[in-house]
Amino acid sequence: MFDSSVYAARRAALARLVRSGCILLPGNDFIGMNYRANTFPFHQDGSFLYFTGLDRPGHCLWLDCESGEEILFGPEPGIEQTIWSGAAPSLSELADLSGIAVSKAMHELADTVRLAKGQGRSIHYSPTYQGESALLLSSVLGIPPLELEAGFSSILVQGIVELRSVKSAAEVTQIRQAIAISAELYDSLMQSCVPGAREMELYGRSQGLIFSHGSREAFPMILSRRGEVLHNHTHDQILRDGDLLLVDSGVVSPLGYASDITRTLPVGGSFSSRQKDIYEIVLEALVAGTLNMAPGVPFVECHLAAARVVARGLTDLGLMLGDPLEAVDRGAHALFFPHGLGHMLGLDVHDMEALGEDFVGYDHEFKRAAQFGLSGLRMARRLRPGFVMTVEPGIYFIPALIRQWREQRRLEEFINYEALDAYLDFGGIRIEDDVLVTEDGRDVLSKDIPKSVDDICRRMGKAS
Amino acid sequence: MFDSSVYAARRAALARLVRSGCILLPGNDFIGMNYRANTFPFHQDGSFLYFTGLDRPGHCLWLDCESGEEILFGPEPGIEQTIWSGAAPSLSELADLSGIAVSKAMHELADTVRLAKGQGRSIHYSPTYQGESALLLSSVLGIPPLELEAGFSSILVQGIVELRSVKSAAEVTQIRQAIAISAELYDSLMQSCVPGAREMELYGRSQGLIFSHGSREAFPMILSRRGEVLHNHTHDQILRDGDLLLVDSGVVSPLGYASDITRTLPVGGSFSSRQKDIYEIVLEALVAGTLNMAPGVPFVECHLAAARVVARGLTDLGLMLGDPLEAVDRGAHALFFPHGLGHMLGLDVHDMEALGEDFVGYDHEFKRAAQFGLSGLRMARRLRPGFVMTVEPGIYFIPALIRQWREQRRLEEFINYEALDAYLDFGGIRIEDDVLVTEDGRDVLSKDIPKSVDDICRRMGKAS
Repeated sequence: MFDSSVYAARRAALARLVRSGCILLPGNDFIGMNYRANTFPFHQDGSFLYFTGLDRPGHCLWLDCESGEEILFGPEPGIEQTIWSGAAPSLSELADLSGIAVSKAMHELADTVRLAKGQGRSIHYSPTYQGESALLLSSVLGIPPLELEAGFSSILVQGIVELRSVKSAAEVTQIRQAIAISAELYDSLMQSCVPGAREMELYGRSQGLIFSHGSREAFPMILSRRGEVLHNHTHDQILRDGDLLLVDSGVVSPLGYASDITRTLPVGGSFSSRQKDIYEIVLEALVAGTLNMAPGVPFVECHLAAARVVARGLTDLGLMLGDPLEAVDRGAHALFFPHGLGHMLGLDVHDMEALGEDFVGYDHEFKRAAQFGLSGLRMARRLRPGFVMTVEPGIYFIPALIRQWREQRRLEEFINYEALDAYLDFGGIRIEDDVLVTEDGRDVLSKDIPKSVDDICRRMGKAS
Repeated sequence: MFDSSVYAARRAALARLVRSGCILLPGNDFIGMNYRANTFPFHQDGSFLYFTGLDRPGHCLWLDCESGEEILFGPEPGIEQTIWSGAAPSLSELADLSGIAVSKAMHELADTVRLAKGQGRSIHYSPTYQGESALLLSSVLGIPPLELEAGFSSILVQGIVELRSVKSAAEVTQIRQAIAISAELYDSLMQSCVPGAREMELYGRSQGLIFSHGSREAFPMILSRRGEVLHNHTHDQILRDGDLLLVDSGVVSPLGYASDITRTLPVGGSFSSRQKDIYEIVLEALVAGTLNMAPGVPFVECHLAAARVVARGLTDLGLMLGDPLEAVDRGAHALFFPHGLGHMLGLDVHDMEALGEDFVGYDHEFKRAAQFGLSGLRMARRLRPGFVMTVEPGIYFIPALIRQWREQRRLEEFINYEALDAYLDFGGIRIEDDVLVTEDGRDVLSKDIPKSVDDICRRMGKAS
C-alpha cells in the first residue's frame, strides 16, 4: 500500500468533485467458481483499490461529501478465519492503513444508508459489473436490480475518472514494475518460440513465470499462431516454421497496476519477406501513433495517424486502392485494423472501463463515431500529462470479415479483394507499447522490450 | 464431451426422479473480474455440465419432466464473435452435441417460463452461488433475489445428487486422468522442495506444469510451510531445512472432473524423528479410514476410525491423555484434526457442494453432528459402489486454537496442554488420497503418488 495519506487525499479530492450527498463504493467480494467456498482468485475493484488501497474482499467504503465522514464497512475476522486462512488484520487495523477513522461491521451498512436516505441525502454509486455488487446495492438501497443501472451517479463517475486518469509518479513506478515482469516474459518467449513447440507449453511456462514473481495476469493472455482472432484465448496449436506467434499479455504490479504488451514473433526466428512487409507497416503505425502523443493532442488524432500509415502501407503493397487519406476517412483500413489504437492503462488494464468507456475516453468535445473500426476506439479525448495509454495498432487478415465485405462489395474502390486471396492464411500482426504522456511529449515505458525486426531476430538468434 | 446419448439418458433419469413440473437449470456465464469484458477464466456449473456436457458460458437448460420437452437456450454467435473470439459452433450444433432437439435464443427464456407459470406448472431450480445466476433466475421467475433461496426445489436437488453421486466407468477414467497430472506435479515438487526454495517459485512452476497440460486448477492450490493454516493460500515464505511443505492441489480432466491430492513433504528430503512420529499417525489414520470404506458403510464410521487412530497415536506420544476412544467420543482429537475425513469428488472438487452439503452427505438416516470437528464432516451417509471420496486426515498444531482451548480448560482430561508448548511451531501434516468405492471394497485411485515415509524420502533422494 501507499501511505494512508495518499488514499485520504484521493478521497478528499473525490468528495470535493462530487460536492454533495454520500458515496457508496463497494469493493469486490470473493465469487464462487462452482460453489460458494471454491472461489476465483480475488481481484479487487479498481476504484475501491484507488480510494482505499485495501486489496481484500468484502468491504465497502462510505463517504459523506459534505461532512467528510468516512466509514469502512467490512468483516471482522474470528477464530474460524484463523484456523482456515490464518491470522488477518482486524477491520480497524485495515481502516487505519487506509486513513479511515471509523470502521463498522458490514451488516451495519444498511442502517447507515437508511439514515442518509431518511435525511433526503442523495447516495452516489457507480455502475456494477458483478452480480454480487448489484445484489448488495439493490439490497441496501432498496432498488430492484433491473433499475440499478439507470440510477448510477454520473457526477461520481466523472469525479473518479478525473482523478484516476492522471497517474502520479508512484503509480507510474508501479506500471513500470509490471512491465519489467512482462519484459522477462517476452524475453523467455523469444527463446522458446520454435517450430514444434506447443502453444499450451509456452502458455504454461508463461503462467509459471508470472506466478513465480508473485504476480498474476491483468487479463487472460492471448498466445496464438492465429493472431487474426483478436482475443484468441485458445492455446491448442503446434507452432510451425513460418508461423507468426501473437502474444498479448499483461501482469499486475505489487499494488495492482497493470502492464499490457503485445509482440508478434516469427516462429523459428526470422520473418518471411511478406511477413516483414506487413510487420514494418504495423511498426511504423505504432511509431506514428506514439510520436503524435503529447499534452493537448486528441488521442483520436494518434489513432488516425496510425490508420493512415496502415492504409498507405497496404496501398503500396497493392492490397488497398485509391487515396490512402480518403480510404481512412471512409473507414476502409478497418477491414485490416478493425479496432482502436489503444486505451488508458492503470489499476485496470482497460482503465476504468467498469465506469463506462464513454466517460473515460470521450467528453463534451469528442463523441464516439459510428463508423466500423473508429467506433471501437476506446478513447478519443485530449491527452494530459500523467495519462498512460496503450498504443497497439494491428493488421489482420480475417477471412470471415473479408468474405463479408467482399460479398457486400463494401468500399471496393479502396480494397483490392482479388489480391487478398493470397493473404487469407496470413493471420495477424499486432504490436503494443505502454506510453506515458509527459509535460512535453511522451515516454515509451515498454521501450526495452524488443520490437524492431532486427532486434527481435537478433534476440531470437537469427539475422533478419 | 461424452456421446450425446449419455447426456440424454441423464436428463431422462432426472425427469423421472423429479416427476412433475419443469426444470430450469442455468449454466454459468462469464463473470467480469474488474469490468464486464475482462473476465475470470470460465468455469461451468457442475450440474449443467453433467446434464448437457456443454462447457460454454451463457446457456440455460429447460426440461419439462412430464412431456419430456428439452430446450437449450443460449447466444447465437455472430460476426463480432468471429472477429474477437474465432469461429464457434452455432447454438443448434451445440444442442445436437448434447442430444437436445430444440434450441432458442436466450431472450426467449422469459416467455417459456411465463407460459409454464401461466399453466400452473411448478418450476424447479436449485440454489445459486453466483450473483449472475441469481439475477437471471430472479428476472425470469419474477422472484425478488432475497426470496430466491427459500424457493429452491429440494426434489430437484435430491434428484441431481442421486444421479451425480454414482460415477460411471467413463467418469472414473476422467478422474484418473486428472490424478495423472497431479502425480506429475507431486513428482516435480519432490524434486524442487529444497531449503532456500521460494514457495512462490514452486507455486509458479506448479501452475506452469498444470497449464502446459491444457488443464487448470480444480481449486486454489495450498502450498505452504505453514500447513497448520488449513486453507493457506499465501506463498510468500522461503523453505528452510527442517520445514514441512504441505501441498493440497487438484486439477481438472479434459471433461472437467477433478483430482484432489495432498502430500506433506520434508524440505530437504528427510523427516525429523518428531515429524516422522506425527506423519506416521496421519498415514495410519488415512489407511484406517480407507480400509473401512465399502458399500453400505457409513462414511462417518471411516471418519471415526481415522479419528481413533489420531487419538491413540497422540496419546502414545503423550500429547493426549486418557482413553482414546472416549477422547474421540468427546471430540478431543478435533483440537488436532478439526475437519472431516473427506468429501465426494467429481465435476466439483467438493462434489455438488453448490446444491447444499447436507443434501450431498446426509440423509434421513444421518444428521449432521453439532460437535466441533465432527460438525465439519461433509459426508456421513452410507457409501455405494461408484462413489468417489477424498480421504484426508490431518494433524495440526494451531497456536490460536490451542490457546483458546487451553484458556477455556476445554477437555483438559484428554489434552496434555503443557506438552503442547513444544509443538507450537510444528505446523501441520495432511495426507489425502482419492478413493473409488467398488462392489466389494475400494480402489485408491491415487495410490501411485508416493506417501509412505520411505517412498517419499527415496523419491526425494534421501534415506528415511
